[in-house]
Parts: sequence; C-alpha cells; structure tokens
Amino acid sequence: MSLPVDSVLLTDLYQLTMLQGYQAQRMNETAVFEFFVRKLPGGAEPKRNFLLAAGLEQALEFLEGMRFRPDEIEWLRATGRFAPDFIDALAALRFSGDVDAMPEGTVFFPDEPIVRVTAPLPEAQLAETRLINLLHFQTLIASKAARMTLAAPGKLLVDFGLRRAHGAEAGLLAARAACLAGFSGTSDVLAGRLWGIPLYGTMAHSFIQAHDDELTAFEHFALAQPDNLVLLIDTYDTEAAAEKLIPLAERLAAKGIRIQGVRLDSGDLAEHARRVRRILDRGGLGQVSIFASGSLDETLLARHTAEAVPIDGYGIGTRMDTSSDAPYLDCAYKLQEYAGIPRRKRSEGKATWPGRKQVYRYYDGEGTMQRDSLTLVDDPQPGEPLLRPVMRHGRRLGASPPLQTLRSYAIEQLGRLPEALRRLSPAPAYPVEIAGRLRALVQAMDGGS
Amino acid sequence: MSLPVDSVLLTDLYQLTMLQGYQAQRMNETAVFEFFVRKLPGGAEPKRNFLLAAGLEQALEFLEGMRFRPDEIEWLRATGRFAPDFIDALAALRFSGDVDAMPEGTVFFPDEPIVRVTAPLPEAQLAETRLINLLHFQTLIASKAARMTLAAPGKLLVDFGLRRAHGAEAGLLAARAACLAGFSGTSDVLAGRLWGIPLYGTMAHSFIQAHDDELTAFEHFALAQPDNLVLLIDTYDTEAAAEKLIPLAERLAAKGIRIQGVRLDSGDLAEHARRVRRILDRGGLGQVSIFASGSLDETLLARHTAEAVPIDGYGIGTRMDTSSDAPYLDCAYKLQEYAGIPRRKRSEGKATWPGRKQVYRYYDGEGTMQRDSLTLVDDPQPGEPLLRPVMRHGRRLGASPPLQTLRSYAIEQLGRLPEALRRLSPAPAYPVEIAGRLRALVQAMDGGS
Repeated sequence: MSLPVDSVLLTDLYQLTMLQGYQAQRMNETAVFEFFVRKLPGGAEPKRNFLLAAGLEQALEFLEGMRFRPDEIEWLRATGRFAPDFIDALAALRFSGDVDAMPEGTVFFPDEPIVRVTAPLPEAQLAETRLINLLHFQTLIASKAARMTLAAPGKLLVDFGLRRAHGAEAGLLAARAACLAGFSGTSDVLAGRLWGIPLYGTMAHSFIQAHDDELTAFEHFALAQPDNLVLLIDTYDTEAAAEKLIPLAERLAAKGIRIQGVRLDSGDLAEHARRVRRILDRGGLGQVSIFASGSLDETLLARHTAEAVPIDGYGIGTRMDTSSDAPYLDCAYKLQEYAGIPRRKRSEGKATWPGRKQVYRYYDGEGTMQRDSLTLVDDPQPGEPLLRPVMRHGRRLGASPPLQTLRSYAIEQLGRLPEALRRLSPAPAYPVEIAGRLRALVQAMDGGS
Repeated sequence: MSLPVDSVLLTDLYQLTMLQGYQAQRMNETAVFEFFVRKLPGGAEPKRNFLLAAGLEQALEFLEGMRFRPDEIEWLRATGRFAPDFIDALAALRFSGDVDAMPEGTVFFPDEPIVRVTAPLPEAQLAETRLINLLHFQTLIASKAARMTLAAPGKLLVDFGLRRAHGAEAGLLAARAACLAGFSGTSDVLAGRLWGIPLYGTMAHSFIQAHDDELTAFEHFALAQPDNLVLLIDTYDTEAAAEKLIPLAERLAAKGIRIQGVRLDSGDLAEHARRVRRILDRGGLGQVSIFASGSLDETLLARHTAEAVPIDGYGIGTRMDTSSDAPYLDCAYKLQEYAGIPRRKRSEGKATWPGRKQVYRYYDGEGTMQRDSLTLVDDPQPGEPLLRPVMRHGRRLGASPPLQTLRSYAIEQLGRLPEALRRLSPAPAYPVEIAGRLRALVQAMDGGS
C-alpha cells in the first residue's frame, strides 16, 4: 500500500471539528495566520544562531491542491461524525487566499513570521497541520545543514541520510533542504530525479563482503564503474586496503580506468585520512581524493577544517537528516487577525505578537545584516521588507525558482551573516526590534481585555 | 506535486551502481542480510532499556511491490549512467526472496536481528535503503512510545504529533507505531482511516481567538460538538476559564449537552490540573475529565503518576513523533552470508556477527523474560525462537495482523519485561548470550583471513 501523503486528510481531527463550528456560526471572514518559530533550540545555550527558511514550494503546492477527493468525502460521511451539509461544504472547499512569505533560503530569527496566510477562516484553519508539517521540517534541516556548509568551506558535502531519515518524505525533503543550504548533492536517487540534485554514490561494505577477497571486489567494481570510481577501504583494515590500491591503480590504468577516490567510514576519520593520504601520495596517487562518512556532524567538520585534515568531501547522513542535536523547532501557525481585528493568544510562555506583520532588515555598509524590525504591515519602515507576495487568490505568482537558484541565494544569505552568528558556538542574540506601533497594539489589547 | 513515496527510486545511488557490478560478474547467488540495532541510544547511560520491533508490515508491502515503473526505467536510461542491458534487467527485477522476522511489538535488544532477508544478492541489496528507512523509524517511535505507556498506566494517551513529525509519512507511521506500543488513539485523520486507529481531537486556540470572547467560543463549540465536548481553557487565564464552565454547564445541560472534558496546554500542567480539578469539583462538575498537552514526555508522565496529578489523559506530540531525546537508532542491514559462506564486516566499532541467525528467549516461571541467546539457525536451542517465517518466494504468508492485535501483543510483551527494564532510568543490560557455535564461527573466520 502506498501512503497517500498528498491527502488533505493529513490533518488533525480538530481542524474538521472546528470547521464544522465555524460553518454553524457562519464564521467565514478573513483570517490572518502567521508561521513563526518561538525560540531557537537549546534554551540558554542556543544550538542554532540563526534559522534558514525552507519548505515554501511544497507549502504552496499543498495549498493550490488542497481539496477533498470523492473517496475521502465518502469516508468522512461514513464515519458519522459530521453533519451532511458540512460534508457538502468540505467537498466544495478550495484554498482561495493570499500568501506572503520570505523566499526559501532567507536567514530569519525567532518571532519573525516567515509565511503569512490571509484567507477565509475555514480555509486558513484547515491548512494548519500540513503547513506546519512542511515548513517546520525543511526549515529544521536547512538550518542544520547551513551550519555544516559554514563549518567545511571548500569541501564537497553530500546528503547520505535517506535510510535513517524519518520516513520517505523526510528523506526526500531533507535532500532538498540540504541542497538549498549549500550541499552539493545527495545519494537519494528520487530526490535527484525530482529536483535535479546532483547524485553521488560509492559502494557499500556488502559489495566487498560478497566477494571472497577485497582486491577482487575492487577490481570488479572498477570494471562496472570505470568513469566514477570511488572505493570503500575500511571493511577489514583501512591502511592495508590503501596499500593494495598502488599496484591496482597501475593495472587499472592499463585499461584506461582511473581511481577517483576512496571512502573511509569508520574509526578515527582524521587519523585514517592522514595515513591514507601519505600512502596514496607515496604511491603516486596524489590525485585520488579522500571521501569520509559515518556519524558526521558540523562539530567534527569544523575540527577537521581547523586541523586541515586531508579529507576532500563528506557524506553526511543521520545527524543532518534527523537534526539530531535539535530534532524539532518550537514553531507555530497562529491566528493574528480575524474579521479585521487583531488577535492575541496570551497562554503562559506562548503569547503571540498580534496583527498582520512584516519584517524589515537593515544592513551595514558591507551588506552584513545588522538588525531586524518586526512591525505591522501598515507601518512601513525604511529597511528591506522580507515577506513578499507569493500567492494571490489561491494561485501562485509565478513558478517556484529552481533549487539551484534558491541555493545560490541561501549561500549569499549565509555570507551576509554577522561573523559571530556564522560560528557553531552560541552567539549573542541577533537584534530583532519590536516597532513602537506593534508594542502599542499589544498594550491596548492587554489593557482592554 | 505529490511525492511518490512508493517509488523504488527511494534508494541510494550506490545500490544501483553495485547492482550493475553484480550483474557484470553474474553474482546472483543467495544472500542473507539481517536488520539489527548495534547499541541502545545514549552510550554509557542508555536512554532506552529495550526496543520494540515495528515497521514489518510496511517493509513487507514494500518488498512485495518492489519494481521499477516504466517512467522510472526511461528516466534511468536517460541519465546515461547505466548500461542498456543493466536497465533491462532492472525493468524485470522483482523480489523473489524469503523473510523471517520478529512479530511487530516484540521486545528486542542490540545485536539481535529482527528481520532476516534471504534472496538473490541484487534483490536483497536493492531493498536495503528503504527497508532500513521503514524498520528504523517505526522501531524508534514504538520504543519511545512504549516508555510513555509504561510511565502512565491507566491514562488515555493520544498521538498529537503530525504537525512536528518529519514530513507526512513520519506523522502517519508515528501514529501507527504509537498505537502499536499502547497509545489509545491519534489526532491524525488519515492514520485513523488507514489503520482504524481511534481518532481524538478537541479545539485549538484559534477557535477561541476568532471569537470576541472566550465564553461565546465555548458556547459555539458546544453547539457544533454536542456529543464529545472538550473545551480548551488556557487561551487567556486557565482558572478563570474553568470558573466560567460552572454556569455554562448548567445552561448547556438545559439543551442536553454535557461538557466531557477540558484541555490544558500551557504553564505548569500539574498545578493547573489540581486547581482546575478543585474548581470543577466544587461546581458539581466532578465527571468532567482533564486532558493535558504541550511538550510532554515520559519523564513528566512518570512524575504526574507518582504525584497522582488529576489528569485523565494526555495528547503527546513532538517529543514522541521525533523521539526527541534519541532521534535515531544505530541500526544496520548487513550481509551475513553469500553463496553459502558466512560473511563478516570487521570495520572498527562496526563488526558484525556473521551467518544467518536466530534469537532464542528464556522466561522464568512467571513468564518474565530472563535472557536471550543469539545463535546460528542450524544450532537450535531450547528457548522460544523469536524470528518466524513471514514471506516465502516474495509472497507474504498470510495477511498482516490488524493493528489492534499487534497492540495487544505489544502490551503483553511489555508486561513480560523484567521490572528494572520497565523503569525509565537506565537498567543493567538485559543478558543476550552469544552461543558457542556462533563464537566459534567468528574465531574461525577472523583467524583464517
């Protein structure tokens, strides 16, 4: 059975229950919801200094296609949970609203909306669960991958995470988010097909083990893969395998085959890389590159960079695809205005900034980010407005940019970060000012309730 | 665009590369791969005392349907990466092998295979990435959810995690894995449809905020949801909202509507629950139950249980659906035998137990698990064999059991755990003995290479 991950039933039951309540009260006026992150993960010692917006393309596709299929309508009817006239309304429901958003790849900070949805209340409400699901995950992964990009300048970074990602969709979207944040490719074949992400791959231990000896396995693999030959050398003894490559390279050269690289996947990668580099260089294989994988994260990448470890590229899997040190963001999609009136949730620790908002960014003379200002849309500021129109009346304003365009933009964004925020260690919080008009609105609302 | 999560292209590029190598060498003999977890997460202070096997149903569905669609074949051809006769072989490829596995819901421990695949080498190899992806994630979530089940005996536990799960498939499979591990239901409508998991839902803050005052919102929701009325009372002031319910309940009673419960979602849940309980009881609403949500994990559940906090049920989201304290397992799918010869990977820290294996379990007089024994399949032991035939020649041996049957089995399994392993704190490792025959095989192999 294939899981229908495009189904509008990918929602929480209470969305449907509330929609029935809205229908009964004819509450169909314009609502404004905003998606934002409440705080950086890690508390007092944040594990991220900034976030990278991602997932907008999939979110807009979802909104454009948001509808109940006939079989879903019949199933809902058969549950007996809902009134017949409400089911009829669901069958006719389409998303007809507007979306304003930060482009994917934009650096952002807590409390800043990255997506603003303006639509009749039931439509904006129904979209909540899947919108959060799509925006949260890619933003989570892009923000993690960006740290790796910053930690390993000049290195080839490849996503290897599909197998330990949380399901198939997570694997696919992680490949996309990592590429957006500066990775060069993925091992995930379907992600390569869907988004044109360059595909990379070497060989597995099973290929070696299925042969009676390692050298035969290398030779067989070379014949099958003459144009892009990367050999995995840690199955039994890493340095012994590296030594075997010297005579092998000579034999293969006679057949016109060149060993492009080796992969290390276990043990102390830095130490093995240094030894293997010496062995290869001594054997005249200075052009053979070293590729490493296995439990990698940005901390190790930064250490390798600092120590100039002779590794040319990294395959990064589990710790990126699960964002293992911070596997979720404290994010929300909150009602900020209904029927022209700003709305504010005041629950302990979860109060929101009300009203429909815009984020303005200010730069110094070199183009480095200096500070942001959060304010109401009808309170324009001199900075650069970060939320831009992307959908009107339920239709996208133009096609989504190609992933490589978004990637270039994201890399440019990382280049505009203040130096302290580019580091892995916790930095002082980037200044996000709350404009006077917005503060005044909150005071008026809290005072008046 | 809908992501085709049933595509066989959900694999790592190197699987295809290796298959081309196997074809060139006519390596099509029988391979035995086993899926197992190397170690419990958390290192010296394990964060899990046991694991719960899950994901087999989806893994078997994947194997039964594993094939390249015509458009995928054409795309592979167009990449120019592969030889034409290899592409033809891929088009004809089907899974024709056997699978032996622990039933879903079985308790297991590191080094114990939970799934054994016996098939022609290319078929078993190609399946690797997606098999790991499916078995890893549900096992991860079931093992986390089982801790919650044990920590909150007698409480209603409901999965609320879809929005922060890593994509749609993760949300769906987490709902399934949580139900398997003892949860009573989910908010995920599609999971309810797919597997008959009971659906639960209350109302969101946006419903309250969209109204000009909280009491009107409560009344409107009551009219729309007269049969299953749970009111969210923390939007502005929790205790003040609870007080409003006393007169409201009387007015609703006149219309034949009963308030079934309230939901708390912020602040100190235990303290609010005690205060709200007192308010409700004083007002004659002793039958109104209290339901809590918001950043819950098993540690908090255990504290509430120990302190007899008057909360009747919990909605648990992010920390379960992401297994946030241990968002991945160190698992592997490894070649253990090829062409009748046992195979062993010896990479540092990643050495495997070779050969096709079985796990036997021993119980004490009360039926409590005492110890396991890991050995070769041709070395039968007197304990209970845990791996059982589930697929032969590419076809399942009977339909998968209904989820409620698996859930009952899993709950029974949890009841057979030794007391120390049922606790949340790290317990001494459960004894998994390596049988003499298996040890002897390793010695022979390491000595002979």
